[in-house]
Amino acid sequence: MPKVGIVMGSISDFEVVKKAIEVLKEFNIEVEARILSAHRTPYDAAEYARTAERRGINVIIAAAGKAAHLPGVLASYTVLPVIGLPIKSSTMDGLDSLLSIVQMPAGIPVATVAVNGSENAALLAVHILSVGYPYLAERLQEYREAMARRVYQQDSKLQEELS
Amino acid sequence: MPKVGIVMGSISDFEVVKKAIEVLKEFNIEVEARILSAHRTPYDAAEYARTAERRGINVIIAAAGKAAHLPGVLASYTVLPVIGLPIKSSTMDGLDSLLSIVQMPAGIPVATVAVNGSENAALLAVHILSVGYPYLAERLQEYREAMARRVYQQDSKLQEELS
Amino acid sequence: MPKVGIVMGSISDFEVVKKAIEVLKEFNIEVEARILSAHRTPYDAAEYARTAERRGINVIIAAAGKAAHLPGVLASYTVLPVIGLPIKSSTMDGLDSLLSIVQMPAGIPVATVAVNGSENAALLAVHILSVGYPYLAERLQEYREAMARRVYQQDSKLQEELS
Amino acid sequence: MPKVGIVMGSISDFEVVKKAIEVLKEFNIEVEARILSAHRTPYDAAEYARTAERRGINVIIAAAGKAAHLPGVLASYTVLPVIGLPIKSSTMDGLDSLLSIVQMPAGIPVATVAVNGSENAALLAVHILSVGYPYLAERLQEYREAMARRVYQQDSKLQEELS
Amino acid sequence: MPKVGIVMGSISDFEVVKKAIEVLKEFNIEVEARILSAHRTPYDAAEYARTAERRGINVIIAAAGKAAHLPGVLASYTVLPVIGLPIKSSTMDGLDSLLSIVQMPAGIPVATVAVNGSENAALLAVHILSVGYPYLAERLQEYREAMARRVYQQDSKLQEELS
Amino acid sequence: MPKVGIVMGSISDFEVVKKAIEVLKEFNIEVEARILSAHRTPYDAAEYARTAERRGINVIIAAAGKAAHLPGVLASYTVLPVIGLPIKSSTMDGLDSLLSIVQMPAGIPVATVAVNGSENAALLAVHILSVGYPYLAERLQEYREAMARRVYQQDSKLQEELS
Amino acid sequence: MPKVGIVMGSISDFEVVKKAIEVLKEFNIEVEARILSAHRTPYDAAEYARTAERRGINVIIAAAGKAAHLPGVLASYTVLPVIGLPIKSSTMDGLDSLLSIVQMPAGIPVATVAVNGSENAALLAVHILSVGYPYLAERLQEYREAMARRVYQQDSKLQEELS
Amino acid sequence: MPKVGIVMGSISDFEVVKKAIEVLKEFNIEVEARILSAHRTPYDAAEYARTAERRGINVIIAAAGKAAHLPGVLASYTVLPVIGLPIKSSTMDGLDSLLSIVQMPAGIPVATVAVNGSENAALLAVHILSVGYPYLAERLQEYREAMARRVYQQDSKLQEELS
Repeated sequence: MPKVGIVMGSISDFEVVKKAIEVLKEFNIEVEARILSAHRTPYDAAEYARTAERRGINVIIAAAGKAAHLPGVLASYTVLPVIGLPIKSSTMDGLDSLLSIVQMPAGIPVATVAVNGSENAALLAVHILSVGYPYLAERLQEYREAMARRVYQQDSKLQEELS
Repeated sequence: MPKVGIVMGSISDFEVVKKAIEVLKEFNIEVEARILSAHRTPYDAAEYARTAERRGINVIIAAAGKAAHLPGVLASYTVLPVIGLPIKSSTMDGLDSLLSIVQMPAGIPVATVAVNGSENAALLAVHILSVGYPYLAERLQEYREAMARRVYQQDSKLQEELS
Repeated sequence: MPKVGIVMGSISDFEVVKKAIEVLKEFNIEVEARILSAHRTPYDAAEYARTAERRGINVIIAAAGKAAHLPGVLASYTVLPVIGLPIKSSTMDGLDSLLSIVQMPAGIPVATVAVNGSENAALLAVHILSVGYPYLAERLQEYREAMARRVYQQDSKLQEELS
Repeated sequence: MPKVGIVMGSISDFEVVKKAIEVLKEFNIEVEARILSAHRTPYDAAEYARTAERRGINVIIAAAGKAAHLPGVLASYTVLPVIGLPIKSSTMDGLDSLLSIVQMPAGIPVATVAVNGSENAALLAVHILSVGYPYLAERLQEYREAMARRVYQQDSKLQEELS
Repeated sequence: MPKVGIVMGSISDFEVVKKAIEVLKEFNIEVEARILSAHRTPYDAAEYARTAERRGINVIIAAAGKAAHLPGVLASYTVLPVIGLPIKSSTMDGLDSLLSIVQMPAGIPVATVAVNGSENAALLAVHILSVGYPYLAERLQEYREAMARRVYQQDSKLQEELS
Repeated sequence: MPKVGIVMGSISDFEVVKKAIEVLKEFNIEVEARILSAHRTPYDAAEYARTAERRGINVIIAAAGKAAHLPGVLASYTVLPVIGLPIKSSTMDGLDSLLSIVQMPAGIPVATVAVNGSENAALLAVHILSVGYPYLAERLQEYREAMARRVYQQDSKLQEELS
Repeated sequence: MPKVGIVMGSISDFEVVKKAIEVLKEFNIEVEARILSAHRTPYDAAEYARTAERRGINVIIAAAGKAAHLPGVLASYTVLPVIGLPIKSSTMDGLDSLLSIVQMPAGIPVATVAVNGSENAALLAVHILSVGYPYLAERLQEYREAMARRVYQQDSKLQEELS
Repeated sequence: MPKVGIVMGSISDFEVVKKAIEVLKEFNIEVEARILSAHRTPYDAAEYARTAERRGINVIIAAAGKAAHLPGVLASYTVLPVIGLPIKSSTMDGLDSLLSIVQMPAGIPVATVAVNGSENAALLAVHILSVGYPYLAERLQEYREAMARRVYQQDSKLQEELS
């Protein structure tokens, strides 16, 4: 059974991150969520990444704000794919988090999604897992069809409102 | 054998993209490189993504500049993981490409790497493939060790220069 | 009778878009408003653009936020003029939407207006329509005179307040 | 016969603007190109816009850099559609020109294209003209087919290089 | 008696601009405040600037938001000094207004102050007027001494709070 | 006879600043140009501003790059009008200089011109001086007419090239 | 006993700055907090910096917003280490304050921390003081252990919530 | 004898960093320069910081570009003061490096200097060291006097050129 590790730098990130957990649960993917700070608990963060594969984790999602080093730091201690989720803090409109995560130097990539894009962080994990768990590709197809249906419903509602 | 599709919007992107092809070749990963434009050849781009899985492709890398829609457009036609590689053009220092790729709305994620970060686009593909092809995790470990050795060599050279 | 197609990526854009519909109604222009997503319903979006001319549409307005691909995607499937209306979302202050729409690569232009500038999106459609429907130029002249009168009224009110 | 007025603020903009003239010539569209400054020749700029329709002009393209007021100033004196072409100058990477043109306040829209996007400024003019001159829609379709063919040729060349 | 013309593009700017009027009143400087739009009432704006000197105005303050052309447009019709006051609107955090005002091309300068900096717009007018009305230099000195006293009072209050 | 003080933070700014000196000379305005650093020679900078009026200076132009404090520091020691000229350095495209100069807090305004806009810094000084030296208004009018003639000449040349 | 001088440009900065005072108190470091403006009280600001060492101060923290010159100005009058704390004001999201502080020209460094990062400004002062007061290094170690414990507690709480 | 550790992420940073080494040598400060990557050699980077104090290092300077994590990562493993030197790379004009270094979350400060500001990184280290080594304060005073003299010489040269 596929398993995703979700690490966030602070409990304040949970408000955004919880959507990612919900989406992964919808796909019946096991989630190990942790609060670990690249800067305040550097040994634990390194240890987490180093042992993640051993604990059965296939993909890591790391959420962090400001000078968001957590995704890159975790990626440097594991060869598991690491998804970076930039969190918008009270200044800089998320640009600091985004650049600190996406502009990784050559050698250690982090798969970055949109600022506060926790649904997409989870979905990207599912896309990645589908490489090893082909049944997830089908589930993603269904998820997309459900999304399309919601667009159609919104459109129908709009037609009613406008007529 | 794992296979990566690399799509670029224009031949002018090849200068940056070719490093990604080299890295994937180093990992003995089959590469299918194409020039396809989301805007100038929209039917072909859609068709490419729709049939990519059937052609044995596991991961798509899409490189584009300016209002870089190619990665998102391809992602909307396939459930394969799509990596977005923002290309810096002559204005806006790559910020336009980056935001056009990374800020994807909820539902259709694109795994974004640094502006002009083609080595990382390729490596991210390998990380993703390793979920289904575990031997690639070992190869990534070796690649990292080689990178570390190059850092040590640079450091040794620096010590010589400074002494 | 001239006809404008207005497409938005999500019902949440309607709050901004409805002003455009009102303005077009003021000019007695037929409006076909739809919710269609470039990413969640890519086939429908392509189909919409491909058949727009056949349905009597002369100009398309496409509103979208974040990595706003909708205007560019529609433009790639039709030679009707496409107006892009960038919607400000909760991060990046609209800069992501703006750059994703305006920085279109050579070949497929999108006529871009200000972030959240839905009145101007509608007015631009009328300016464009006036090329084929000359009576609209007169109507625009009247619209401008009404705007000027509102400026004069504001100015009169200010003079009263200050005296 | 359709006619486009192209106004630039300075001879230094001609290097970028000349591509727009070439594209319009390709479509057999009459071009009236002028150097007029919103700030250094304000009376002439206003006069130009006020009398443009009388001279048979259907669409105006205005190119300007830095605090680029020319497109907005022309638009305020005519109800012809005005296309704004932001020119990148030696500082600010074109962001100043772009924002000064695209962020027009409600009432007076300017159809903005990419920074230095002179091919697209011309093509947008053709799209707009096609509302009144339907044969241009066919010409645009042919232009697009030629662009697609060039993409296919680039792709073929890439396949040769890589094989 | 010195006289300052204050022009704003819309009544919505008055909330910010009124502080400028208050400061000028404090210096017993005559103020002529007007609402005039560079785009919606271009003839009036041009006329205002052309005749400002004749009406005894020595300095013009022009406040505008978004693609803020008003200061530059007024400056192009008069050789009176023009002060530009960028107003922050609901998007872009004032950066669009600032760049549209400050980045004026060579030949027509606008003396730009901070975004929403209406107190400074007024004070700058007084500094400029002091070149022709030397008694204002003394008044500015007193104004500064009063400001310094307020800083001392704040400091005293802080010392009390902290002790 | 009117007199302008031009202060720059480093000899490297002279390349940009010299155009300002030329323009002022054209207007027969006395110029006192100095290299003084707000940070490396703070006492001298303060002394310069404090005594500028005594030396007959009417307006100060201060040019500086990066965290450009010079204009604001000089302004805090004098009630003469201070014009800030942001200089573009090797990073940040001039945005740092611009914001460090224009965003002055309430109380001490700096009249800011475009990045590297030294011609405009000089012209703004002349506009300001014209409040006390009315003959300069006439000279500015002539300067503008000469600029307009150069625009006309450029336009004529363009017409020749295109015909 | 070590002593830190904290200077802020306005009482409105105290809301952010007070956290720095609390942190320093926690380390039993003497704090001298002052309101002094680089622009409104330039003589006092210069005097403060010039005499700071004499008053036993080892490190200065200077907090300021917008065109934040205070840290750089103080640094130019003393060789004590100066820490710059950029304060976010109502426009520009703190980018103006940050660039005005961090981009200091060569010769006069300011040790800059995050926008509104007052806890870090205080901690940086303690790190710097520890060079001369080694017992503070131990206290910092304890502070970090307490921070790590808080991360563990947050993590435990998260595990409870999720189980 | 005071000692500074200088760590850079890649040999390509040395071009900028060498100026810092020269400045520290000028102050007779022992320098230990190393190439260590936060991401490619994470264990070595952590080990370096953990043992730096033991090797007699008083202050660490860390130079890095793009998503520049090195300064923050080192700071998380030591309570020595860490100075962050953002290096400008080929995209984003140094903004990514700056934000990745300066926007550190609460608890682990990094003393940030200007982009490519290696002279200031070295000088800041000397300022910090002077807290424990008071003779360095005198040396800094002399350094400043030499800088002031260079400003005077530049000014003299300017006076000659202009006369």
